[in-house]
Amino acid sequence: MPELRKDPISGGWVIIAVERGKRPTDFASPPVQRRKGGFCPFCPGNEYTTPSEIMAFRPSSTQMNTAGWTLRVMPNKFPALQIYGGLNRSGEGMFDKMNGIGAHEVIIETPDHLLSLATMPPKAVEDVLWAYYQRLSDLKKDSRFKYVLIFKNEGDAAGASLEHSHSQLIALPIVPKLVREEVDSCRHYFEFKERCIFCDVINQEMEDGKRVIYENSGYIAIAPYAPRSPFETWILPKKHESVFYPPNKSFSSLADVLQRALKQMDRILDTPPYNFIIHTSPFTEEINEYYHWHIELMPKLTNIAGFEWGSGFYINPTPPEEAARFMREAKI
Amino acid sequence: MPELRKDPISGGWVIIAVERGKRPTDFASPPVQRRKGGFCPFCPGNEYTTPSEIMAFRPSSTQMNTAGWTLRVMPNKFPALQIYGGLNRSGEGMFDKMNGIGAHEVIIETPDHLLSLATMPPKAVEDVLWAYYQRLSDLKKDSRFKYVLIFKNEGDAAGASLEHSHSQLIALPIVPKLVREEVDSCRHYFEFKERCIFCDVINQEMEDGKRVIYENSGYIAIAPYAPRSPFETWILPKKHESVFYPPNKSFSSLADVLQRALKQMDRILDTPPYNFIIHTSPFTEEINEYYHWHIELMPKLTNIAGFEWGSGFYINPTPPEEAARFMREAKI
Repeated sequence: MPELRKDPISGGWVIIAVERGKRPTDFASPPVQRRKGGFCPFCPGNEYTTPSEIMAFRPSSTQMNTAGWTLRVMPNKFPALQIYGGLNRSGEGMFDKMNGIGAHEVIIETPDHLLSLATMPPKAVEDVLWAYYQRLSDLKKDSRFKYVLIFKNEGDAAGASLEHSHSQLIALPIVPKLVREEVDSCRHYFEFKERCIFCDVINQEMEDGKRVIYENSGYIAIAPYAPRSPFETWILPKKHESVFYPPNKSFSSLADVLQRALKQMDRILDTPPYNFIIHTSPFTEEINEYYHWHIELMPKLTNIAGFEWGSGFYINPTPPEEAARFMREAKI
Repeated sequence: MPELRKDPISGGWVIIAVERGKRPTDFASPPVQRRKGGFCPFCPGNEYTTPSEIMAFRPSSTQMNTAGWTLRVMPNKFPALQIYGGLNRSGEGMFDKMNGIGAHEVIIETPDHLLSLATMPPKAVEDVLWAYYQRLSDLKKDSRFKYVLIFKNEGDAAGASLEHSHSQLIALPIVPKLVREEVDSCRHYFEFKERCIFCDVINQEMEDGKRVIYENSGYIAIAPYAPRSPFETWILPKKHESVFYPPNKSFSSLADVLQRALKQMDRILDTPPYNFIIHTSPFTEEINEYYHWHIELMPKLTNIAGFEWGSGFYINPTPPEEAARFMREAKI
């Protein structure tokens, strides 16, 4: 008998095929590959083909927009939003619109075209997290922006148009609907229970253990109880933190959990395309007791997202208990 | 300058690239094709390979589960939910679950392996709508069910596992989250305005005209003001109707608009994969003044759904005004 399970945060129900769940090898997607040889605008030496850099990690002996960097951030060459201008909120009859003001930036995670976030040195993963944090801190100062969405598309099938490993961020003058709903849902739970719902989830998962993938001193990776897609993985700070932040000025513990999850996924799912999104509190309520920042990581294994995002109804052929076990047992 | 637009029903904002919007030919997806020759369980003569039929349109001289039908409905061979059993709602610590009780059915729309909903005779499209309606009416009698989700996945990339033209339905013991939110949002608007929000949208669109794709006496096809994906199309009854229903006992007017939209899409987007979903009122509030049933049709043109459904934030490279114009001007 399949199970209907409710996600306690979103309130959405999903169907979980608990009996003959699909195993990792049942998902046949072509592995994400990186090839040397072609021209890549993200490779060192080609800085002149991209917009001018916003920040970079590079020795002080090197020049801006030249090779020598280990990480580089610049505006997206084809931005979804524009950085200059006023919001100009207005109506169009019963409809509402505003200017598409915002920032759309690209974080080139490594100069090495062949490395991925799973295969680069751990220190480089830490640097990627530092870059996220620094850009977030900088964009927060612009009073037009209410939220920064930090995400990564890995592989063509997950929306990456270039194979050189990179993340993106979009600074927005609005809080996206799903973020608003998630934060509001957590606040309602807090009003009722006087506890953070994610803290409650973490406590129950740590006691139970069967959906825990990995944990270290600071962070935990779990397969959520009602995952929308097979092998969906959440990475959360074990102690309550409402906003993406380096505790004790270090991202090493988070980088460890994130990279391990990516290595495990690569191992059991043959280097799948994936998306991850950083879920953090909106700027106007960054420090709070009710929302718990986290990363949601989803390998892109199936093609049915069209129907699913149109209906809000998900069918997941792999129980999270099995997904977590496969992830835990992956030899990395 | 791109535009941020708010969907008045969902409240979600999307980014619309209003300046250099992508034209239909900018979306290069392989056309959906149907090939003769291979074994197809949905073709006449192979009825023995599928579960026994629930209903069929067939001459009374023919036997159940044999050839001769023009439309056939049967349980999905690999159902996401099971039809027999009790719901058995229960908790698992802080989590909620119930048995995966429901119906999962397949509507084979035509005996001809090579036809699509766009190319079959108009009368056959009407029959498909009648089949939806009859199954909906039948499943409503089962008190365990609260909603029936009727949808079509066309083409492998949109989630169709078999190429023979078919639709599906899933009867659910819960109302899906997005349906609940949409209905609630319409009810709130009604409480405020004492008008149906979709009726207001239709009135404004008919006056304005630039997002109207086609209309006949009963129905209208529009490109919504804040579409989540390029060439998203909504088909709505022009007069307020809260539930999917054949007015004057006829689906001919609806079949006309639906098939025309599919033909237009096939023409300008080269037979793209697509999904459509019937949005109708939940069983417990079928007749109401606030919700307006409709069809949401989305060609599957891009690969970025993973990030988008994870964030609830959509970037649409084609303004709906241009999409509607291309659709209107398609030579079909």
